Amino acid sequence: MLAAPINPSDINRIEGVYPVRPQVPAVGGYEGVGEVHSVGAAVKGFLPGDLVIPSPPSFGTWQTYIVKDQNVWYKINKKSPLEYAATITVNPLTALRMLEDFVTLNKGDAIVQNGATSIVGQCIIQLAHHRGIHNINIIRDRTGSDEVKEKLKNLGADEVFTESQLEVKNVKGLLSGIPEPALGFNCVGGNAASLVLKFLGRGGTMVTYGGMSKKPITVSTSSFIFKDLSLRGFWLQNWMSTEKAKGCRVLIDSLLDLAREGKLKYEMELVPFDNFNAAIDKALGKQGSQPKQVINFQL
Amino acid sequence: MLAAPINPSDINRIEGVYPVRPQVPAVGGYEGVGEVHSVGAAVKGFLPGDLVIPSPPSFGTWQTYIVKDQNVWYKINKKSPLEYAATITVNPLTALRMLEDFVTLNKGDAIVQNGATSIVGQCIIQLAHHRGIHNINIIRDRTGSDEVKEKLKNLGADEVFTESQLEVKNVKGLLSGIPEPALGFNCVGGNAASLVLKFLGRGGTMVTYGGMSKKPITVSTSSFIFKDLSLRGFWLQNWMSTEKAKGCRVLIDSLLDLAREGKLKYEMELVPFDNFNAAIDKALGKQGSQPKQVINFQL
Repeated sequence: MLAAPINPSDINRIEGVYPVRPQVPAVGGYEGVGEVHSVGAAVKGFLPGDLVIPSPPSFGTWQTYIVKDQNVWYKINKKSPLEYAATITVNPLTALRMLEDFVTLNKGDAIVQNGATSIVGQCIIQLAHHRGIHNINIIRDRTGSDEVKEKLKNLGADEVFTESQLEVKNVKGLLSGIPEPALGFNCVGGNAASLVLKFLGRGGTMVTYGGMSKKPITVSTSSFIFKDLSLRGFWLQNWMSTEKAKGCRVLIDSLLDLAREGKLKYEMELVPFDNFNAAIDKALGKQGSQPKQVINFQL
Repeated sequence: MLAAPINPSDINRIEGVYPVRPQVPAVGGYEGVGEVHSVGAAVKGFLPGDLVIPSPPSFGTWQTYIVKDQNVWYKINKKSPLEYAATITVNPLTALRMLEDFVTLNKGDAIVQNGATSIVGQCIIQLAHHRGIHNINIIRDRTGSDEVKEKLKNLGADEVFTESQLEVKNVKGLLSGIPEPALGFNCVGGNAASLVLKFLGRGGTMVTYGGMSKKPITVSTSSFIFKDLSLRGFWLQNWMSTEKAKGCRVLIDSLLDLAREGKLKYEMELVPFDNFNAAIDKALGKQGSQPKQVINFQL
């Protein structure tokens, strides 16, 4: 393996939050990028030096050498930036699937999301912008929120609001020239989820894919009856176990193309394996907001 | 008009709970049954003496005489019991649509609902039972709950629990021989809605069609992500405005057939119009649980 990220989901797995627990002792890591070192006599289509990722993603990418059947590896473009190749399968693919699998969006439509500064959030902004989908973004109140807004707008965000800016009777009155969103994404819960629901138009859908605040989602009866809202969930690991996942390699290629062209970007820090402990602390948020930690096994 | 019920939705409309408000002065009532008194020269297919209902239902059934275009009336079987003809369109049709429109249920599958003593709840029990669908029912704690359970079981309920009976760690452990329900119905909100969610199996759907407790619905993040639950809403008035409503008259016939055969029943009280005020009080629940109040304009 050349590089593999520390995703929040890796931490959740270690902490036992997930219903599927690896048998210990186990090797962590769910995605990453490697270079083919050598191949068996019957292997076709792979040569030493090829850049590969486990696809669909699978456990055990936090190690230097892996021996597995050729079927679990996918050869990617050698020009792919290493840190994007290592991280393309979990967050960007989640963003892409969530934009596709719940509501048919056409150019000019709108979406709304909370947790917009997360990597998935940043990918949603860029993928939506790329397709001409307006995007409304909610971030939490923090020092430096103006800089955060600027950064997200540079990625393609149409609107960015802090939660406190949305303490108004009619949040939709804050929008100009953007239609009521038909689709919303929630990775926070609590009040931040209620704000997504407020923005949604009649018949809209909110997809929950995380719960960073550890607070539940509270919904009024009238949201369901009169506003006809639907609440759904998305979990990449579940999607990967379905028939739909067969198409994931083509999607990976298209996402890596976007990354190579600079149309899909997010901040990452390549960390030598020796600094693993410090990287885990950063990934856990112990030092405030930090770039995605990607372990580089070569450094 | 011969007879028309006082539905909770009529009360909600009068109280202004609904987003669509009738222009006042207005005539109340959204469904009912009438007898054709006379027809215009160009009218075909109707004769004086025919039994008719407004279909799709429409406002203004609380009056003795109505003059409207023949298109809004639907001729029903003259042998239909009057009180069922008057009430078949709102509650039984809601039950039928909710069983059909969200999840494909096969014989042997299961559903779960709260508010099981409501007329919609009773219809769900009977329609599910009729189709070989197991049904799990949640009622509120009250004196005489054993009699209520017995009554619902006589209608075809497989299981009936009071909310307090479900204060256990694993509610599904209370079931024997019934699969995890794929579909749930909520007309209460609050804890009663959470109990429906607890019973649902992975990938299940909860449909909210009322909020009797006036409490919101609270859902954990993991219900969406790991359990892949969907939360939806149903409002008959909205359904009636869609293309699907074109088929509603055939459904009415099938429901009236079931009522005539005694396979669909619920308690009603035919009340003379002079007792309208007392009937409204009963419909408002001011005298505890009461049969559905149906005004008989002939008495």
